[in-house]
Amino acid sequence: MGAEKKSTFLLIHGAWHGAWCYERVIPLLARAGHAAVAVDMPGHGLNARFPRSFLARPINLGEFATEVSPLAHLTLSDFVVRVTAAVDRLLEGGSGPVVLVGHSAGGAPITAVGEAAPGKIKKLVYLAAFMPATGVAAGRYTRLPENEGDLLTPLFVGDGGKIGAARIDTRSTDVRYRAQFKEALYSDVDDADFEATRNLLTPDFPGMPLGTPIVTTAARWGSVPRAYIKCLRDNALRPKLQQHFIDLADAFAPGKKTEVVAMDRSHSPFLCAPEELAEILIRLA
Amino acid sequence: MGAEKKSTFLLIHGAWHGAWCYERVIPLLARAGHAAVAVDMPGHGLNARFPRSFLARPINLGEFATEVSPLAHLTLSDFVVRVTAAVDRLLEGGSGPVVLVGHSAGGAPITAVGEAAPGKIKKLVYLAAFMPATGVAAGRYTRLPENEGDLLTPLFVGDGGKIGAARIDTRSTDVRYRAQFKEALYSDVDDADFEATRNLLTPDFPGMPLGTPIVTTAARWGSVPRAYIKCLRDNALRPKLQQHFIDLADAFAPGKKTEVVAMDRSHSPFLCAPEELAEILIRLA
Repeated sequence: MGAEKKSTFLLIHGAWHGAWCYERVIPLLARAGHAAVAVDMPGHGLNARFPRSFLARPINLGEFATEVSPLAHLTLSDFVVRVTAAVDRLLEGGSGPVVLVGHSAGGAPITAVGEAAPGKIKKLVYLAAFMPATGVAAGRYTRLPENEGDLLTPLFVGDGGKIGAARIDTRSTDVRYRAQFKEALYSDVDDADFEATRNLLTPDFPGMPLGTPIVTTAARWGSVPRAYIKCLRDNALRPKLQQHFIDLADAFAPGKKTEVVAMDRSHSPFLCAPEELAEILIRLA
Repeated sequence: MGAEKKSTFLLIHGAWHGAWCYERVIPLLARAGHAAVAVDMPGHGLNARFPRSFLARPINLGEFATEVSPLAHLTLSDFVVRVTAAVDRLLEGGSGPVVLVGHSAGGAPITAVGEAAPGKIKKLVYLAAFMPATGVAAGRYTRLPENEGDLLTPLFVGDGGKIGAARIDTRSTDVRYRAQFKEALYSDVDDADFEATRNLLTPDFPGMPLGTPIVTTAARWGSVPRAYIKCLRDNALRPKLQQHFIDLADAFAPGKKTEVVAMDRSHSPFLCAPEELAEILIRLA
């Protein structure tokens, strides 16, 4: 394979996850000669901060439902700054424009970065991700009829507006809660792998990143080649909502239609189908 | 920077950690044009498996101290197979021989891989890691006088021989236990980062990988350029023990002396000093 065909991927995780979720995918991209880097968003992975009640033994579920999130202050801009810094480091290292992949809530910051710095992006890849229309906050879409069947939102603990976060009890021992959590995000993930994932997850996703409208333009964001990987068994961002994002984008920026690939998978193909996901990413790059 | 100067790093974590511990270092290596991949060892990160008692709410500490580890069956060979597969994927992607970095318990599998496949390794880098002499199980060293001041071993829960693992109560709410755990591995890590790290850690490290002697030879393992990054404030693998490893290696394979670099850091420089660590790795590569 010629050096000219190598790409550099920057992988952005979604809510509650961290760079760790791409651990199985990165070596497969490397095997094909591609560089790939994943980074922790603010308040996630090594940057995670916890409600005190979550760390207590035993947990007091009443306090957990009302304690204000230590991440409540984080803005979309904080996420954008972090993604941009990661892009710039790759460019400094000689990567050339990067393939910027966003999973789920990671779709919001990659959209903003696509608008702010289209020249730094080779392609935007939305993996079962929010791809909001200009001026519409990403979080608005989860309540649309297109998202009927969403199993995730009912699991949120407490009043998100008051605690400043979408909070999940990642370590719940309630049999029904745990089962629905798996069904919402990881229905086709091995049960033992789900347990390993639960350990790595963090409970809070701040309210502002998905609550802030992003202004995009056809001339900038719309000029960047984009792809959408639809997850057809997704019970969090439902396939109809994913298609709605694609339809909106193609009407807004018809000069470059969204390249669409479908996976017959849950919301988390990096866990259950890393080989298939890596192949798709390589094909799209 | 010319393409000929680019290196590829494979980063191997230690006990209880995962690929996630290198999240801050990898983008800094990429910024300098180097490729870097970290992988989860068996039983760690996304491969983690838990004692059932650890996941219960509230935790039953008596059960936690006696439950046999779900990782008890894992062998050194399992770790070696995983590291070797990761090396081979990088080579397949055109990396050329890799810089193989092992932290702490990661020193055992990288030693075995260095012996088995010296031609695939550009350099072995031991980061506050076990670098056992031929035929001596790595775990034997922790009880030597050179490791006096070890704050980690006293934190092990239960009888390691019976449960088949070195077990840590990573989520302990006991103030003294938590404080000593921080002092043992993360004395210079920010308290909030320590909490984020605790969330990602897993409780068990299997007994066999450090309990199995590795036969090395001067002709194979000793032929690979090697470096040791000493951590001078390490309260788990004490600096005198780190120096002991270096002395043993240099007596065994005097043709290639160990390149030694010191950091005035705890056992976990990837958390508290990622910039400094990345600079050192780049210099060594």
